[in-house]
Amino acid sequence: MLNFSCDYLQGCHPKILERLIQTNDELTAGYGNDHYTKSAKEKILKRCGCPHGDVYFLVGGTQTNALVIKSLLKSYQGVIAADSGHIAVHEAGAIEMGGHKIMTVPNVLGKITALSVEKICEDYYNDENHEHMVMPGMVYLSFPTEVGTLYSKEELSELSITCKKYNLKLYIDGARLGYGLAASQNNLKIEDIANLSDIFYIGGTKVGALFGEALVIPHNKEMIPGMFPIIKQNGALVAKGRILGIQFDTLFTDDLYFEIANNAIKQAAKIKKVFLEKNYKFYLDSPTNQIFIVMNKDKSQELKKKVIYSFWENLSDGNVVIRLATSWSTTDQEVEELIKCL
Amino acid sequence: MLNFSCDYLQGCHPKILERLIQTNDELTAGYGNDHYTKSAKEKILKRCGCPHGDVYFLVGGTQTNALVIKSLLKSYQGVIAADSGHIAVHEAGAIEMGGHKIMTVPNVLGKITALSVEKICEDYYNDENHEHMVMPGMVYLSFPTEVGTLYSKEELSELSITCKKYNLKLYIDGARLGYGLAASQNNLKIEDIANLSDIFYIGGTKVGALFGEALVIPHNKEMIPGMFPIIKQNGALVAKGRILGIQFDTLFTDDLYFEIANNAIKQAAKIKKVFLEKNYKFYLDSPTNQIFIVMNKDKSQELKKKVIYSFWENLSDGNVVIRLATSWSTTDQEVEELIKCL
Amino acid sequence: MLNFSCDYLQGCHPKILERLIQTNDELTAGYGNDHYTKSAKEKILKRCGCPHGDVYFLVGGTQTNALVIKSLLKSYQGVIAADSGHIAVHEAGAIEMGGHKIMTVPNVLGKITALSVEKICEDYYNDENHEHMVMPGMVYLSFPTEVGTLYSKEELSELSITCKKYNLKLYIDGARLGYGLAASQNNLKIEDIANLSDIFYIGGTKVGALFGEALVIPHNKEMIPGMFPIIKQNGALVAKGRILGIQFDTLFTDDLYFEIANNAIKQAAKIKKVFLEKNYKFYLDSPTNQIFIVMNKDKSQELKKKVIYSFWENLSDGNVVIRLATSWSTTDQEVEELIKCL
Amino acid sequence: MLNFSCDYLQGCHPKILERLIQTNDELTAGYGNDHYTKSAKEKILKRCGCPHGDVYFLVGGTQTNALVIKSLLKSYQGVIAADSGHIAVHEAGAIEMGGHKIMTVPNVLGKITALSVEKICEDYYNDENHEHMVMPGMVYLSFPTEVGTLYSKEELSELSITCKKYNLKLYIDGARLGYGLAASQNNLKIEDIANLSDIFYIGGTKVGALFGEALVIPHNKEMIPGMFPIIKQNGALVAKGRILGIQFDTLFTDDLYFEIANNAIKQAAKIKKVFLEKNYKFYLDSPTNQIFIVMNKDKSQELKKKVIYSFWENLSDGNVVIRLATSWSTTDQEVEELIKCL
Repeated sequence: MLNFSCDYLQGCHPKILERLIQTNDELTAGYGNDHYTKSAKEKILKRCGCPHGDVYFLVGGTQTNALVIKSLLKSYQGVIAADSGHIAVHEAGAIEMGGHKIMTVPNVLGKITALSVEKICEDYYNDENHEHMVMPGMVYLSFPTEVGTLYSKEELSELSITCKKYNLKLYIDGARLGYGLAASQNNLKIEDIANLSDIFYIGGTKVGALFGEALVIPHNKEMIPGMFPIIKQNGALVAKGRILGIQFDTLFTDDLYFEIANNAIKQAAKIKKVFLEKNYKFYLDSPTNQIFIVMNKDKSQELKKKVIYSFWENLSDGNVVIRLATSWSTTDQEVEELIKCL
Repeated sequence: MLNFSCDYLQGCHPKILERLIQTNDELTAGYGNDHYTKSAKEKILKRCGCPHGDVYFLVGGTQTNALVIKSLLKSYQGVIAADSGHIAVHEAGAIEMGGHKIMTVPNVLGKITALSVEKICEDYYNDENHEHMVMPGMVYLSFPTEVGTLYSKEELSELSITCKKYNLKLYIDGARLGYGLAASQNNLKIEDIANLSDIFYIGGTKVGALFGEALVIPHNKEMIPGMFPIIKQNGALVAKGRILGIQFDTLFTDDLYFEIANNAIKQAAKIKKVFLEKNYKFYLDSPTNQIFIVMNKDKSQELKKKVIYSFWENLSDGNVVIRLATSWSTTDQEVEELIKCL
Repeated sequence: MLNFSCDYLQGCHPKILERLIQTNDELTAGYGNDHYTKSAKEKILKRCGCPHGDVYFLVGGTQTNALVIKSLLKSYQGVIAADSGHIAVHEAGAIEMGGHKIMTVPNVLGKITALSVEKICEDYYNDENHEHMVMPGMVYLSFPTEVGTLYSKEELSELSITCKKYNLKLYIDGARLGYGLAASQNNLKIEDIANLSDIFYIGGTKVGALFGEALVIPHNKEMIPGMFPIIKQNGALVAKGRILGIQFDTLFTDDLYFEIANNAIKQAAKIKKVFLEKNYKFYLDSPTNQIFIVMNKDKSQELKKKVIYSFWENLSDGNVVIRLATSWSTTDQEVEELIKCL
Repeated sequence: MLNFSCDYLQGCHPKILERLIQTNDELTAGYGNDHYTKSAKEKILKRCGCPHGDVYFLVGGTQTNALVIKSLLKSYQGVIAADSGHIAVHEAGAIEMGGHKIMTVPNVLGKITALSVEKICEDYYNDENHEHMVMPGMVYLSFPTEVGTLYSKEELSELSITCKKYNLKLYIDGARLGYGLAASQNNLKIEDIANLSDIFYIGGTKVGALFGEALVIPHNKEMIPGMFPIIKQNGALVAKGRILGIQFDTLFTDDLYFEIANNAIKQAAKIKKVFLEKNYKFYLDSPTNQIFIVMNKDKSQELKKKVIYSFWENLSDGNVVIRLATSWSTTDQEVEELIKCL
């Protein structure tokens, strides 16, 4: 059966498997002290235009988010996020378990605005009782967002300036970073992401890896002292760290990461075109690898027999929203079969 | 200068001081294992109509809220509260430091509705991905609320039923419980509070004590196993526990707690009457000891020279809201002087 | 019945009660923003010889210990303490709940030695795998110790030097500080305590107050940024903060704190003299207000009928150790009656 | 260069790589809701003789230990462990970060004894002040231990009985479980491990997998309610969960796990034999895949030029202890070359 339910349905890009096979018998030091990890770090830093930064490889997105937030905030600080943000909705309380409030603001097409950050800070600092309140200490945003939308360079720059004004760290969750960078509407380069944020991660799990995220600290290597024991203490240290190193070394050789991300965008475009031709409406204009389609219930039930997709939302007019996701691995054939089903 | 800024401006009710003097030389066991504490517990349980329950004396409201919530919730559960709730706004992140998300719902005159609780639970249980989300585990509400409003018996009963339906603990923050029970519009008795909730506290700090809150577990003594080490571990155990016992024993002798709470209501009524006569508008109808008055800025500045009050909010029409609070200790003379200032 | 079981059996020193009565009707700002608290801070800082430091008033010892340790350590650091230290034994896991390991070293008469601190640090830094281990970040010691012994000025200086060498904060738990300073064998002044430590607290609960500890940051006001919200967040903020201010203002007026501590030492000396005359052996030489006596079981049972004391330990020779404690409130008459019982 | 420094130097067993290749293009549901994971669970439960239990796949040992301990203990409980236990020494404070004290007892050849568990419990329950202390709630032990020693069936049974007596959960860290079961001195079957413990994990990372541990709850599926959100919340949920499922399905097909563990034991035996013949002394008799050899410093320096090993300890007589580890992947050739170096 066709499956467009998410972007982590397959194993990994074949080149990664090849490298795992080639390197399998080699004996290397553990915990990321191997030459593959070193090489991957260097390639990533170079590609991000921040050679003096640092990179840490972690296993998954929630782990990365929780670790970053708890390492950077003081106990009485919170993290500002869109109410649709992954940390606010789908991490089972990981951030609060780490001790911090998520200070949500209403999302605008999945995004947070500089204005809403400014408002939350002004409200805090102008309140006579602010010492009894949670202090804003960080802004969390996803690029692309959870609904596949993108910040423009202007929007991100404005957020960056606002963060500096209020002494907030700016953290970018790049679980699907590749797909955002590959989108035709996008005007941000990975160097901009590095330049405008204090810390961000490059998602591997959803963009070609078996698993793994590359956490980049672009400007200040010393921003989080004790990163090694912090990773260990959070149960996030992989004994055979090279498995992460090899994967990211492969993804950042000859821009493989970017190339395979393109495929998702290309396939999504083909699907969107057909839906448009058939006069379907999109729930929102998502320029990356997620497509949100408004459909009547009967049609959605019919489609369900042939395609696995994500149910997104019931609309008040009786229609439903479904989500289709493409990925680095989506084939022309899969898309053609999908189109036939419509 | 006149001071109506809050309800914890004075020391304590003179009868408490008297008892402290009378008992000062007596040698008693520590940590609440003294006969005053025992007596206070018994009087409270009897007065609440739950003789088989249990009572723990703690120092302050935030401490009590944090301890209750962290002791009763599983790590992946959150507590539902109004967005105006004390835990959501004015506890500097104490609940999140304890590991739990506060799942806020928009307040209606400071209150949470059974409907909004129902919605949050239905949304959770109907979401296919709810195992990735924070599970609602408790409802927190304040009686009276932070803006002095009251739940009716009907409203509280409905909330109680909804909580049972979704397996939520119902916790009532009674920082100003006395003032709520004393209000003329109130139709809840303290026995109802005990009967309809799973756990609640009777505020002493704001109602006549030097400090101290009585946490009541009305139905199930064993609801929180290990309460003693939990209190100790949270730094909430008072070595000379009798200081708490003596205070609450005094407050619950001859209904002193209820009697002195009446004074706050009586004095507030006098003040409200004058404001009404002078055609001031109230920001909201608060039937307890807090009065929220809409005032133009000039007038508020003028008043500030004679009376210490709380600034509450800037309104969009250029007016401001100020808060006056009465308490168990407010005197006729203070109220008369205040009235002269208007 | 006579009661020498601990040093927190009574209410408080009569002068404190007097001040509470005198000030009871006064209206003051909350949360320590009152003039009594201000005055108490100034008197303490002056008396400690550190006028540019800061003081925070908290409710109890475990609360203070937990808050200090969690505020000063990084997540992957631990606190070095004697295995007999209060935090290691009698705080129900409060320090670990705050996230930190207590790195215990064998006590020498209740004390920790510079040598043992040095060893733990050398072992850590020399271990190839130390990034997988807890980093020592602080030394905790009690003055007097839990068994009433004292560090000499030389010992404390040596510990202070060792702490600086390994970048450890030195924290002194002064739950019974007054009794240590009053002991005739003691060669440390309170100015030395302030001078040699990074942070310490002056115990009120066991030395004349109803409750309360004064946490002193002698050198660097900014050592713990955000102390106010940290206190709030830990449920340690007292709404009527003046109750703490008034108590410590009284204790630090005309050196009352030191004077009343003397009484405990004087009474303990009388008791020890009698035991010595009667050829009892002491379990250890405790120069402060705690007396540890070796006694045969029968004698201890007989004494139990007349005096409440603390059982301390069973010895392998069949004898037992009992503890008697004097305090600021112990009277000549109580001591005479005790002596009659022997 | 030869490398015997640890047992996680290589990638994974070739059969696992093969399965990853075969399955790579398949689209499956995420988060462990795939048929490989289901199959792996069933095979493991069957092999452990506990078909009604449950299995969860996690990424690493520290993560597993931290998650198990924090999920099973009440906030005021601690976990009893040998002072040489992995959680006590090499997890950078992960257990304490989760809120719990590790109550260490002196190890006997890396092991904990039922007697020492009994003593810690008796001391706790007999102490009048035990409510101020950390309550023992669990026993943690490693099989094999961190120094490669083994519990006999008799020892483990006795520990199991003691745990039941004091209401302690018994948790077995099986990071190297395969090597323990394969040892010739061993008289425990995996069914015994399941039968005698409340929860244990089968280590994959050190026994043939790229990464991964299988946490087995043998008797009571419901022992930890909310395991899915707990895993998510702890950042331990792998999006492409099948990567874990496929690995363990492979390892538990045709007893591959046990077969490859044998290799480590066989190779270790050959190495030990040669050291014995050359009259080296072992630091302790470790019957599994770790060999601890006493060597004079010069010899150890010489060997270092040809073989990477682990430095273990300086002895007081000037000799050193080095550790060699074999694994599932150690080849005859590597062992022969090592022998030539001696």
